[in-house]
Amino acid sequence: MSFPKRVTIVEVGPRDGLQNESEIIPTPIKIEFIHQLAAAGLSVIEATSFVSKKWVPALADGSDVLPALNQHAGVRYPVLVPNETGLNAALAAGAKDIAVFTTPSETFSMKNTNCTVADSLARMKTVITQAKHAGCRVRAYISCVLGCPYEGDILPDSVAAMAYALMNDGCDEISLGDTIGVGTPGKTLALLETVMKKVHRDQLAVHFHDTYGQALVNIYVALQCGIATIDSAVAGLGGCPYAAGASGNVATEDVVYLLNGMGIETGVNLEKLIAAGRFIAKKLGHPPRSRVNAAFGDK
Amino acid sequence: MSFPKRVTIVEVGPRDGLQNESEIIPTPIKIEFIHQLAAAGLSVIEATSFVSKKWVPALADGSDVLPALNQHAGVRYPVLVPNETGLNAALAAGAKDIAVFTTPSETFSMKNTNCTVADSLARMKTVITQAKHAGCRVRAYISCVLGCPYEGDILPDSVAAMAYALMNDGCDEISLGDTIGVGTPGKTLALLETVMKKVHRDQLAVHFHDTYGQALVNIYVALQCGIATIDSAVAGLGGCPYAAGASGNVATEDVVYLLNGMGIETGVNLEKLIAAGRFIAKKLGHPPRSRVNAAFGDK
Repeated sequence: MSFPKRVTIVEVGPRDGLQNESEIIPTPIKIEFIHQLAAAGLSVIEATSFVSKKWVPALADGSDVLPALNQHAGVRYPVLVPNETGLNAALAAGAKDIAVFTTPSETFSMKNTNCTVADSLARMKTVITQAKHAGCRVRAYISCVLGCPYEGDILPDSVAAMAYALMNDGCDEISLGDTIGVGTPGKTLALLETVMKKVHRDQLAVHFHDTYGQALVNIYVALQCGIATIDSAVAGLGGCPYAAGASGNVATEDVVYLLNGMGIETGVNLEKLIAAGRFIAKKLGHPPRSRVNAAFGDK
Repeated sequence: MSFPKRVTIVEVGPRDGLQNESEIIPTPIKIEFIHQLAAAGLSVIEATSFVSKKWVPALADGSDVLPALNQHAGVRYPVLVPNETGLNAALAAGAKDIAVFTTPSETFSMKNTNCTVADSLARMKTVITQAKHAGCRVRAYISCVLGCPYEGDILPDSVAAMAYALMNDGCDEISLGDTIGVGTPGKTLALLETVMKKVHRDQLAVHFHDTYGQALVNIYVALQCGIATIDSAVAGLGGCPYAAGASGNVATEDVVYLLNGMGIETGVNLEKLIAAGRFIAKKLGHPPRSRVNAAFGDK
C-alpha cells in the first residue's frame, strides 16, 4: 500500500452534477455556487459544458457562466466540450482547461454521441489537438469503464488501449468513469492495474457514481494504487440518466471525510464545503445526497 | 491481502434496526419480517432484545416474538440481553443464542447502562457464565470502538484488552461496533491489527454504522484483514440515538452487493433481501436507506 500524501479533488458538481438534475439553476446561482466551492478550497472545479443546448438544456448558459467567474489564482475551471463547435465556444468564453469524453462501449457511444467508438476517437483527436494548440490543458473522460448499461462488462484492455491512445493524442489526464456505479473493488483493482501498464498513475483520475453505494470503497482501492486525483460532486449532485436509482456522483463531503480521516491532504475546508452543498441543494429543492452533509445536520 | 472466501452476515435489522426506529412495529409484522430474512438466505438474524421496556419500548415484545418464529434449520436467532433478568427472560422464551454488550468508554457506559466499565464487565461475566451454563452461544458487542460521542478517540489497546477479557469470560465471538460511524480506514486498520493480537480474526465481527458513509470502506479493510463476520441491517434500519444524522446500520443490501462483486459467498439472495427491506421500510413509513435497494427501484 502506498497512499498518496495529497489528493486533488476535481469537483464536478457544477457540470456533471447540475447537468443531470431535473431543476435548471439560474446563471447567477451557478456563479455563486462555483465561488463558494473555490472559497472552500477546491482547486479544480469543472464549471460548465459547451454541449448543444438541445441535449443539455441545464447548461445552456456556459458562455455566460465562465467569463463571469471571479477566478481564484491557483484554481482551474475546466469545461466539457463534445466537439470542435463546443471547443470554439469554450475558447471564445475564455476556457483554459477543457475536458473531452468518449467510451469503449459501441452501444453507449452511439446512444450518447451518435457515433461509433472509432469516429468518436477521431473527433476527440481533432479537438484535443486544437485545444492543445490553443494552450489548453486537456482531460479526457472515458465513460462506462466498469460496465455499460447496454453491453454489460467492458474489457479492462479496451479501456487501457483507449487511455493510451488519448494520451498519445496529447491529453494531460484521463478520468476513468464508472458511469453507472456498478464497480466493486476486485473489478476496480483489475481495471486500474491494467490501465496503469499503459498510463502512469499520476495522469489518472477516478470518477465514481454512488448508485450502489460502492463509490468510496472503489476510491479506497484507487488510493491503494497510488492514484491521487478523485472526481466528486458536492451534495452528491447529478447522476446518470441511463442508470437506475436516484444516486449521482459520489459526494465530495464524503470523500473529504474519508481523506481527512486517513490524513491525506486535500486543501478543502469541510465546513465551507458542506455549506456550499446545502446552498445548491436548497436551490434544487432536495436535501444534499451526502451522508456527511446529513450527519452535520444539527450542528 | 487475504479475503475470506465466505462471509457470515449477522442481520441486526430486527433488533439494532427496529430498536432505534421511531415507529413501533406490531409483533406479527416483526415475525413476518424475520421469516422473510431467513427465506432470503441469512443464517444469523438477531431477532429481538430482552432489555427493559422502559428503555427500549420498540422491542418490548421479545417474549412474544422469539417463541413464535418458525425457526429454519441452520439459522441462528440471537437475542440481546443486558443483565441476568434479561437473560432469564430470553432463556424462558427459548433463546439458544444471546448477545451481551459493553464499551471501553466510561462516559458512554454511564449514560447507556448507568454503570462504570468495571461494573459492566463484572455484570457481563455473570451473564456470559450463566448463558454458557445454559448451553447458549454468546456474542459480545463492544460499542464505540472507533470513537465515543462523549470521549472522542478510544484507544485500540483498551478495546483489545476488553475483547480479550470477554473471550476469557467464555464468549464465542466479539462484535466491534463503530456505534457513531466515525471510523475511517486508517483507524479501522489500526484497531483491527491491535485487537487481532489478542483475539483470533475468526472470533471477530465488525459492526459499522453508515453515519458518514464510511461503512463499506471500513468493511473492505476488515475483509482485507481476513475478518469474515459482518453485521448489517437490511434497508439500513436503525441508527444510534447519540449520533448525528439519520443514518443507521450499514445496509445489508449494499454489503451483499459488495461481496457479490468480489466473488465472496454469503448465501443471500439479493432480490429476496431487497423485498424484505421494502416490506419493513413500508411499515416504518420511509424508503429503505440502502443505495442498492433504491437503485433496484424500477426493476
